[in-house]
Amino acid sequence: MIDAKRGTAVVLIVLLSVGLFSCAKRVETPKEPEITMVIHGGAGTILKENMTPERERAYTEKLTEALQMGLEILKNDGSSLDAVEAAIRVLEDSPLFNAGKGAVFTAQGKNELDASIMDGTTLNAGAVASVTTIKNPISAARAVMEDSKHVLLVGRGAELFAAGQGLDIVDPEYFFEQTRWDQLLKIKESEQSSLERSGAIQMRFGTVGALALDRKGNLAAGTSTGGLTNKRHGRVGDSPIVGAGTYANNATCAVSGTGQGEYFMRNLVAYDVSALMEYQGMNLDDAVEKVIQEKLTELGGLGGVIALDKFGNVAMSFNTEGMYRGWIKEDGEAQVLLYGDEDE
Amino acid sequence: MIDAKRGTAVVLIVLLSVGLFSCAKRVETPKEPEITMVIHGGAGTILKENMTPERERAYTEKLTEALQMGLEILKNDGSSLDAVEAAIRVLEDSPLFNAGKGAVFTAQGKNELDASIMDGTTLNAGAVASVTTIKNPISAARAVMEDSKHVLLVGRGAELFAAGQGLDIVDPEYFFEQTRWDQLLKIKESEQSSLERSGAIQMRFGTVGALALDRKGNLAAGTSTGGLTNKRHGRVGDSPIVGAGTYANNATCAVSGTGQGEYFMRNLVAYDVSALMEYQGMNLDDAVEKVIQEKLTELGGLGGVIALDKFGNVAMSFNTEGMYRGWIKEDGEAQVLLYGDEDE
Repeated sequence: MIDAKRGTAVVLIVLLSVGLFSCAKRVETPKEPEITMVIHGGAGTILKENMTPERERAYTEKLTEALQMGLEILKNDGSSLDAVEAAIRVLEDSPLFNAGKGAVFTAQGKNELDASIMDGTTLNAGAVASVTTIKNPISAARAVMEDSKHVLLVGRGAELFAAGQGLDIVDPEYFFEQTRWDQLLKIKESEQSSLERSGAIQMRFGTVGALALDRKGNLAAGTSTGGLTNKRHGRVGDSPIVGAGTYANNATCAVSGTGQGEYFMRNLVAYDVSALMEYQGMNLDDAVEKVIQEKLTELGGLGGVIALDKFGNVAMSFNTEGMYRGWIKEDGEAQVLLYGDEDE
Repeated sequence: MIDAKRGTAVVLIVLLSVGLFSCAKRVETPKEPEITMVIHGGAGTILKENMTPERERAYTEKLTEALQMGLEILKNDGSSLDAVEAAIRVLEDSPLFNAGKGAVFTAQGKNELDASIMDGTTLNAGAVASVTTIKNPISAARAVMEDSKHVLLVGRGAELFAAGQGLDIVDPEYFFEQTRWDQLLKIKESEQSSLERSGAIQMRFGTVGALALDRKGNLAAGTSTGGLTNKRHGRVGDSPIVGAGTYANNATCAVSGTGQGEYFMRNLVAYDVSALMEYQGMNLDDAVEKVIQEKLTELGGLGGVIALDKFGNVAMSFNTEGMYRGWIKEDGEAQVLLYGDEDE
């Protein structure tokens, strides 16, 4: 029986298992990096009473598939970047998550997608935003990082770049999902805009993200999203912004966020976890706690992050009812959790 | 005779004049905020031998006009946000700077503009990116902050929003300047892309930014740019990204950057100055030095920042040959500098 209240206590298993559970300001004991995958599939009002066993199983299976896809790459000495990209593609291709296929609709009834990826070894990064024809935005983000001199490409320019790189281009119709369309209609009917009360509706099917630590000790992070249901045409959230929704630095940690993007942008949530570790000597768990449970919460923002440090420690924290999340290590089973307070 | 090498020693005048020049980790002595405007007009290969007296005078006069415009607002108990917006509009409307009228051209021969503004009191922020028809992108950024629930709008969606807010919309032709067009042709002729050797050409006419501290002790920051000459369609740099090109927080400082945007984005340059002050107790000058002369330089990035803390201390640092920059206080003359190593 593990009390996973606020999503952070679950991490105790991992921390205790490697003997690193202690207070801030301590000195980390270097050890061999253990290959690790961590993912999330969005935070929000995820309550057991609202789920059917079938839906629960569908989410658990898809999150497990993504974890195993990434782990397989890491086991074969693949890079953390490859593992992150592959895991996120699994979630983008699934209509269960608000990324790629299954993205939410804008106020104009379109799907506008954002994604970013960051390499903790070089601090290089790539991102695309407000794209409508790229099947896998995370792969476009990686192409921006590796095959352009830029970090962020938006709109038609990003689509032309992705096409030029030979990435899969689809008709915007590909992203259509009836459940997402119904969500848009429901929000429009209630004549409310996207960020307030409706957070409960849209955030239940949030952003996806992945973090990986490979055998070389290299960290990577990636995030992909369709943004907010009923968002304004051209609205870009935190997911494609380095330091807001995504950050990776071998010296500290990898982070991916999900939630009310505007608050994550104003708070530099992903980078802030790293900054607290670098500048205050905090451990991963304390840094994540401070950023989500103190700073983000005090500003009034909702959401959560997953984080992974260079030793393979995992931390997860959110101030919503639940967050789809999971992790896996070399010789372990995939650990997948959906709710904020549950038994394992 | 003041040695202004690397652009930071010039700040000694200000620091010494208020008795705050000391080492890091000291405790700040609270005092009444003194209203202050700080601006920059871009960093790069700004060398006295390449300037004519006429050009020197033109830049100095326009920077002085922007400073005085902002100061006038502050003197009349206006807000730091109003002062920042007004000062940047002066620079956007001038063809001398790479922002608004006079923006550089993309590889496709278009002008795509980015801007952001941040309120240090609320940590609210607004930004637009990749817009082609908004006369004053800084005002659109402010409208996003104040009249939408979003932080960043890009492309056509941002333009439609700005039009709906009654902001000045212009034909893209408005932004055309022959000198910018000639720069694009020159770069294209040399068949090189935008970020490397050509930095010398485009960065000579960079991004603009402004910071203000008002009588209430509130800080604000803003940045506006046309980006990089010959940039790819859809490329977005650091200027519209909260924490990369712009940041403001009453608890620490206001910052605006200019330079190779991709490096500023990967390094979270603007927020990093604030994080060093908040988490390590550094003073403004030390934080700015560390971020520009150590962290940015070690990553290989070129550029600079202006920064202003809650007490009215000013810091400026850059690792290029020069940076158009200036500041003014309530009872003082506008101080405008162009080069990296000059006499006052």
